[in-house]
Amino acid sequence: MNASQPPELPVDNAEGLTLARLDIGREARCGAPEAVFAQGKTPEDTLAIAARLAEKQGHALVTRANPETMRLLRERWPDLRAAAHAGTALVGDIPPGGAEGGWVAIAAAGTSDLPVAEEAAMTLASLGVESRIIADIGVAGLHRLLAQVDTLRRAAVVIAVAGMEGALPSVLSGLMAVPIIAVPTSVGYGAHLGGLTALLGMLGSCSPGISVVNIDNGFGAAVAAARIVNNGKRLAERREP
Amino acid sequence: MNASQPPELPVDNAEGLTLARLDIGREARCGAPEAVFAQGKTPEDTLAIAARLAEKQGHALVTRANPETMRLLRERWPDLRAAAHAGTALVGDIPPGGAEGGWVAIAAAGTSDLPVAEEAAMTLASLGVESRIIADIGVAGLHRLLAQVDTLRRAAVVIAVAGMEGALPSVLSGLMAVPIIAVPTSVGYGAHLGGLTALLGMLGSCSPGISVVNIDNGFGAAVAAARIVNNGKRLAERREP
Amino acid sequence: MNASQPPELPVDNAEGLTLARLDIGREARCGAPEAVFAQGKTPEDTLAIAARLAEKQGHALVTRANPETMRLLRERWPDLRAAAHAGTALVGDIPPGGAEGGWVAIAAAGTSDLPVAEEAAMTLASLGVESRIIADIGVAGLHRLLAQVDTLRRAAVVIAVAGMEGALPSVLSGLMAVPIIAVPTSVGYGAHLGGLTALLGMLGSCSPGISVVNIDNGFGAAVAAARIVNNGKRLAERREP
Amino acid sequence: MNASQPPELPVDNAEGLTLARLDIGREARCGAPEAVFAQGKTPEDTLAIAARLAEKQGHALVTRANPETMRLLRERWPDLRAAAHAGTALVGDIPPGGAEGGWVAIAAAGTSDLPVAEEAAMTLASLGVESRIIADIGVAGLHRLLAQVDTLRRAAVVIAVAGMEGALPSVLSGLMAVPIIAVPTSVGYGAHLGGLTALLGMLGSCSPGISVVNIDNGFGAAVAAARIVNNGKRLAERREP
Amino acid sequence: MNASQPPELPVDNAEGLTLARLDIGREARCGAPEAVFAQGKTPEDTLAIAARLAEKQGHALVTRANPETMRLLRERWPDLRAAAHAGTALVGDIPPGGAEGGWVAIAAAGTSDLPVAEEAAMTLASLGVESRIIADIGVAGLHRLLAQVDTLRRAAVVIAVAGMEGALPSVLSGLMAVPIIAVPTSVGYGAHLGGLTALLGMLGSCSPGISVVNIDNGFGAAVAAARIVNNGKRLAERREP
Amino acid sequence: MNASQPPELPVDNAEGLTLARLDIGREARCGAPEAVFAQGKTPEDTLAIAARLAEKQGHALVTRANPETMRLLRERWPDLRAAAHAGTALVGDIPPGGAEGGWVAIAAAGTSDLPVAEEAAMTLASLGVESRIIADIGVAGLHRLLAQVDTLRRAAVVIAVAGMEGALPSVLSGLMAVPIIAVPTSVGYGAHLGGLTALLGMLGSCSPGISVVNIDNGFGAAVAAARIVNNGKRLAERREP
Amino acid sequence: MNASQPPELPVDNAEGLTLARLDIGREARCGAPEAVFAQGKTPEDTLAIAARLAEKQGHALVTRANPETMRLLRERWPDLRAAAHAGTALVGDIPPGGAEGGWVAIAAAGTSDLPVAEEAAMTLASLGVESRIIADIGVAGLHRLLAQVDTLRRAAVVIAVAGMEGALPSVLSGLMAVPIIAVPTSVGYGAHLGGLTALLGMLGSCSPGISVVNIDNGFGAAVAAARIVNNGKRLAERREP
Amino acid sequence: MNASQPPELPVDNAEGLTLARLDIGREARCGAPEAVFAQGKTPEDTLAIAARLAEKQGHALVTRANPETMRLLRERWPDLRAAAHAGTALVGDIPPGGAEGGWVAIAAAGTSDLPVAEEAAMTLASLGVESRIIADIGVAGLHRLLAQVDTLRRAAVVIAVAGMEGALPSVLSGLMAVPIIAVPTSVGYGAHLGGLTALLGMLGSCSPGISVVNIDNGFGAAVAAARIVNNGKRLAERREP
Repeated sequence: MNASQPPELPVDNAEGLTLARLDIGREARCGAPEAVFAQGKTPEDTLAIAARLAEKQGHALVTRANPETMRLLRERWPDLRAAAHAGTALVGDIPPGGAEGGWVAIAAAGTSDLPVAEEAAMTLASLGVESRIIADIGVAGLHRLLAQVDTLRRAAVVIAVAGMEGALPSVLSGLMAVPIIAVPTSVGYGAHLGGLTALLGMLGSCSPGISVVNIDNGFGAAVAAARIVNNGKRLAERREP
Repeated sequence: MNASQPPELPVDNAEGLTLARLDIGREARCGAPEAVFAQGKTPEDTLAIAARLAEKQGHALVTRANPETMRLLRERWPDLRAAAHAGTALVGDIPPGGAEGGWVAIAAAGTSDLPVAEEAAMTLASLGVESRIIADIGVAGLHRLLAQVDTLRRAAVVIAVAGMEGALPSVLSGLMAVPIIAVPTSVGYGAHLGGLTALLGMLGSCSPGISVVNIDNGFGAAVAAARIVNNGKRLAERREP
Repeated sequence: MNASQPPELPVDNAEGLTLARLDIGREARCGAPEAVFAQGKTPEDTLAIAARLAEKQGHALVTRANPETMRLLRERWPDLRAAAHAGTALVGDIPPGGAEGGWVAIAAAGTSDLPVAEEAAMTLASLGVESRIIADIGVAGLHRLLAQVDTLRRAAVVIAVAGMEGALPSVLSGLMAVPIIAVPTSVGYGAHLGGLTALLGMLGSCSPGISVVNIDNGFGAAVAAARIVNNGKRLAERREP
Repeated sequence: MNASQPPELPVDNAEGLTLARLDIGREARCGAPEAVFAQGKTPEDTLAIAARLAEKQGHALVTRANPETMRLLRERWPDLRAAAHAGTALVGDIPPGGAEGGWVAIAAAGTSDLPVAEEAAMTLASLGVESRIIADIGVAGLHRLLAQVDTLRRAAVVIAVAGMEGALPSVLSGLMAVPIIAVPTSVGYGAHLGGLTALLGMLGSCSPGISVVNIDNGFGAAVAAARIVNNGKRLAERREP
Repeated sequence: MNASQPPELPVDNAEGLTLARLDIGREARCGAPEAVFAQGKTPEDTLAIAARLAEKQGHALVTRANPETMRLLRERWPDLRAAAHAGTALVGDIPPGGAEGGWVAIAAAGTSDLPVAEEAAMTLASLGVESRIIADIGVAGLHRLLAQVDTLRRAAVVIAVAGMEGALPSVLSGLMAVPIIAVPTSVGYGAHLGGLTALLGMLGSCSPGISVVNIDNGFGAAVAAARIVNNGKRLAERREP
Repeated sequence: MNASQPPELPVDNAEGLTLARLDIGREARCGAPEAVFAQGKTPEDTLAIAARLAEKQGHALVTRANPETMRLLRERWPDLRAAAHAGTALVGDIPPGGAEGGWVAIAAAGTSDLPVAEEAAMTLASLGVESRIIADIGVAGLHRLLAQVDTLRRAAVVIAVAGMEGALPSVLSGLMAVPIIAVPTSVGYGAHLGGLTALLGMLGSCSPGISVVNIDNGFGAAVAAARIVNNGKRLAERREP
Repeated sequence: MNASQPPELPVDNAEGLTLARLDIGREARCGAPEAVFAQGKTPEDTLAIAARLAEKQGHALVTRANPETMRLLRERWPDLRAAAHAGTALVGDIPPGGAEGGWVAIAAAGTSDLPVAEEAAMTLASLGVESRIIADIGVAGLHRLLAQVDTLRRAAVVIAVAGMEGALPSVLSGLMAVPIIAVPTSVGYGAHLGGLTALLGMLGSCSPGISVVNIDNGFGAAVAAARIVNNGKRLAERREP
Repeated sequence: MNASQPPELPVDNAEGLTLARLDIGREARCGAPEAVFAQGKTPEDTLAIAARLAEKQGHALVTRANPETMRLLRERWPDLRAAAHAGTALVGDIPPGGAEGGWVAIAAAGTSDLPVAEEAAMTLASLGVESRIIADIGVAGLHRLLAQVDTLRRAAVVIAVAGMEGALPSVLSGLMAVPIIAVPTSVGYGAHLGGLTALLGMLGSCSPGISVVNIDNGFGAAVAAARIVNNGKRLAERREP
């Protein structure tokens, strides 16, 4: 073949095009195994990819599954761990966690923010990191928020999930020195702009120490939090005799 | 002149075009006298309009004056009342207020929000309504905010001025039953979008009972607050024997 | 438990996650009882929350209910008060109002703005505040608008509901001294941007004295109006011997 | 020269690049002679182009000239016709107009809209079309607007110039059957978005019969209005015996 | 009733709220009768309003009707005039037009722009103005466009309908002196932003003499064009002996 | 017919309006035959246009066909060449390509970008240009990307397809001197803004040498790439003895 | 004083309004002392606040100082530590750091991103956290980036600073398991939208594990990074015997 | 040094931070030598970098230089080649071009687009590619555009530079089969949005075969065009015996 000659044209190769090449070495490289983002995939494709991941990695995390996909996943793996509202499922053996790096608090402002909080909690479980959801502590009901401050201060990381004006992380950040990862949600009405209002509010917070992930991205917040916890674990281990 | 014949063409008639026709009857009709918005006007035009308003109404409010205009106003009216950072001046006899409708609390989140708070305070003074600025109570320093809640609850209206993520009115609204008018300010950096972030956050507040005026519009918030105070005054008077 | 140990992980706890913790003390604190925002909730969840609220508060307001939820609500509470186009229902004993603080005029520009006006009217009823909808007075038919000015001037607050270019509050504000709360609606076509055009127009009004709530937010406008009416009532009562 | 050979490279040829090739045949083709848009041009270039246009066409219109350019224009043509606030000048013999097609009313909402109104008036004069500016008839002062309705109804076209929420053309369009061309201006504060708020409001008007030109584009509105007037003139002439 | 007493509360008055008050005097005042905008109305409401309008005005125009509504309209008025792709129907006696003011050319860039062109044509018919659609003359096929220039020059007004980059009116405006009303359409893919790209392109055209209506607003363009034609007619009549 | 008389009014002429006038001469003029953009067309219309194009040109390309249209196309032309995920089909005799101008590499960042890559590959096939899809080489898995650099360097053009942050072309451009055409896709979640994020990122690339087509526009990228290949072919041919 | 009586009106109290109330207890509460954001403050105010902070805290960090303010700071504190391009200065005794929590790598894509990187480095120094800037490793020069991967992997946190398309954190995140905080900068031209393009690209990264702060917000990234380092330090200390 | 120990902190190292590390190997890798983007750099830094580049590469291209920098460049290199309006200068020996790959036509719509066209021409010269600017062929003056079509067809690539609605490339693309790279410019007024209107219009062109670079990015368009020309040259050379 000379330089300008094209290789064969792989058009309409349904199998090759539909199933992603799995990146099995990813965990070693980046600290997080590959997950299956089910949105936009057929239930069949989702199951097939999950099965292959579980075989290679021992477990597989599926996010953004619709109810039909969730039903099929339950049929195939009756004992999976699932957060139905979030469309998240964890298949296979859950990796054992460890308290050395601490645990993650997931603060959710309102009821509608819970699916995103659940996605974060399930992702953390799949990464062997412990977490706890602390719900309904939006800034309009300050007494409920203040009642949870002591608990939140004990976490290694706080993931703060909020829609609407997204003020929760600002208030939390002024009350504690824990790293805070803010997750804007697409919850809201009127000019919430699909979550952009909360996103911009979190980025523009008057309180430094907050970093932000994309709208509804509970998965990404969990991976970022796990990196922090693992960093702490690494340091803690290094100090042990 | 027949129907299709145009009247004389008033092009380049500097006087007629520069000076607005004054709307002296406005106070009787809308409850607020006309004010002079100095931005974009020459200092000379501003002085001329202020003088004519003061002559007709007994006093005149000038907003958004630059330092040079402020200097000229002080020269002309040495005893004017001025808020220099806000570029606001009140010329002439300040109308007497009255406690019947209550007073207005102007809550400002940060130092940079003060010029807008001052513009509101001066406008209220020009309308005969008493007010008090309560500064530096942003949500990132919750202890300072909570220390002022009892004071704020005694006001007839709270004007809440905040930039950045604009979370102040949300928190206040959950703590009191007073009408709250939110004013977003253009204070911020990064993706604050000239105040749009705060504006959207206030509109999308998770806490009902808030209404919002335009960015940096301390003047508009004051006129809206004065209408509420005057409404209360009208009701209070009606009940008197 | 030491500081870094997490409490139990409450993942997939359907009951706890779906049903919001009710904030029963809210009325005393903020002057408005909690309402049920039905959008995004299942009919069953909506009914359950409404029942619990009605039991605690004596009544419950449901907003943004879809037809199926409305049907179920009527089955359960045959004598509820409902505004079908708005998807709003008021369950239980309507709290008695009082004329001391005045009543609220709800001005609607066009036919399509009526559901939002209805949401405001029902919310006011749930708060014990009297109101009246005055429809079809958009600025393109100025004679109909002018015919209602005397009525509007007698209200304690005017809620002005309009879509498209949102010019109604500007025109009203120049004609009366009553506090005006503007509600932009998502009614329009072409570059109406889901109501942003009306929202921006209302914020940028050439006529001071207007404050604005979020797009289609009849509920929020009503709570803000009720705060003003109650403020007047408080003042009126204080004056009584 | 064969097909792939490039002609000489005309880089840094200051004369050819700075001075536009004049389109002298334009008037015959499009009904409007070429004008000089001075913004972004040096005063010297502006004068040179104006001189060449005036020589060819008998007159030349200059728009968006800064004060320095205006000064030089007056030096060179002491008897030019100028609208100083608008930075517009008309050099040479003004073409005679005619009443056959009617005249153009230029309605301006506020004082700050006058420079744009003046630009339109001068452009119409350069096209031989008569016009009249009717100022200070914004919708917040409805009585002043209504006092001008009879005059406006006699025009062949109404150009409605307004900033802020841009509601003037909506109100006018409901009161008359004359063609209305709306010009949004960049006047405003807060979220006026450089005139986008007024532009969107005018496009989304609840009142049909309005068409819109770009922000601050008094020149474009005038050319569009002149086309309408000339169309009427053509029809009127055709009917004459 | 004293001043603060509210009139009866008209909540949930389905009839009054659903059916708009008809504005029968509109034609005399604004030159265009009221039309029925069917989008967002039930077929039954649309039929009822159309029937009442036809009774009062002799005819009724319905725009944006979905297929079901179109079917019902045809059942009720078997001889109506309809443009099925546009969802537009004209019920009753079509008003007689007249050649005095000229006719309207409706230029459409592509096949997908035709429903908007049809809406304009039907609206013009309902106003007694003659029109002709000239299709498929987008700027990417310049030879087809140039072949129609002579025809377009004979019209009294050109309505230029185009999606995507919206360049059609710019090119036409450089070729003729006829008034041009541009209609951007929501046709396109990628970053066409629902028609905003075409809208902005038309507003920012390098060729003066164009005015623009809202996205997909064939109805509004037709009303604006009819005003121009009627203006010419008025002038033509005035000249007749 | 005199100048102001309109031709007959072609309203509701379903055939003429639905079927585009085919532009058969296009290939000679622009180097690419006309294609059928099926989105928004009925399956029947799509088939009819495809049949007419295939008859005139020997083949026809259909893009953005939905599953039902794909099914009908297969029924009619059982031996068509199809890329099912992309909704693209090539009917008739595929034009013979040639290696003189080189081949096109289509680099796709992720699995979800493959339908757009397929659309490009099918379009190139319809234009007689050879291509090869190289998938799953997003920048987060740099080792997979680097493994393909040598192959990509041998192509005449690289089409780089990516969603999310759209970083693929930046990285490729720094590694090779081949012309790169970037295609942003609407793949992503959160603030991906329907592909605008990727589009803006590609336009703002820190690496020069990239040009960009519209979101998801695999068709347009292929036509642009074919022009480059054909340009090379023309040059290569010119040099042959 | 009864409930409706206002306290004195503090208008134009220059001292109280200009100087923020210092929040000296902040470090204990949130882990970061208060800093002076000099932008928008006069040099004199900046100096005064810095002096008071340095007196209370032992040191003070000034950010976004213009050259004049920098000159005055140097005059007053000749031995301050300064990053002139960033307008950042550290006055007083720098708090001692410690290696227990690790150090922070600040990766900068291009030369223009360095001032933001410097702001982060100075902020970290003021917090007693060690850091190192690694410059010029943008994705268009992949060989320079890859040469630094081993160094970056040793850090406790990576702050990745980039403008334009903001692709640097995506590439880094795929190569290491360290927590990554991305800082978009306002560097770029064309449609970079003041840094929004980079911001959106970072949020939409195809690589999980990244969290983002506001545009040009080197200060905020540093505070967030310091929280992570301190969290690790806390864990490391807890493990020590 | 153990893993968690940071290297020295390079804060305020003015030299290292200001001068970019030069990427001298770039030409071999990417086909284009490094250039100096002068905007945001001091004149002194620009000169220093240009001198170092010229020493290594034999020549250096400087873009976006302000007048003061241009003056200093001319002082230092009296025989440089400069395009003053564009702020572009070419220092040192211009590399010899060759006709094998063809030449580039740079079509500019209006006078204000010329600086961007010049930047492209100078960049091409620095890359050894011949070019010709063809000015003032905007779509509003179609006769001038059509007169240049034969010349444009002979080019290997057309760079089409246009502001306002950006329609030039659409019209050109329908008239020729040459690859077209479109450059939107920030020229315009009103809602041109700093060039976004032209950018969106070019991306959404109805005519395939166009690819687009960022606003005002004459440099990027030239590099992309040079890659195409060089690709042709490579093919032409390969064919030679």
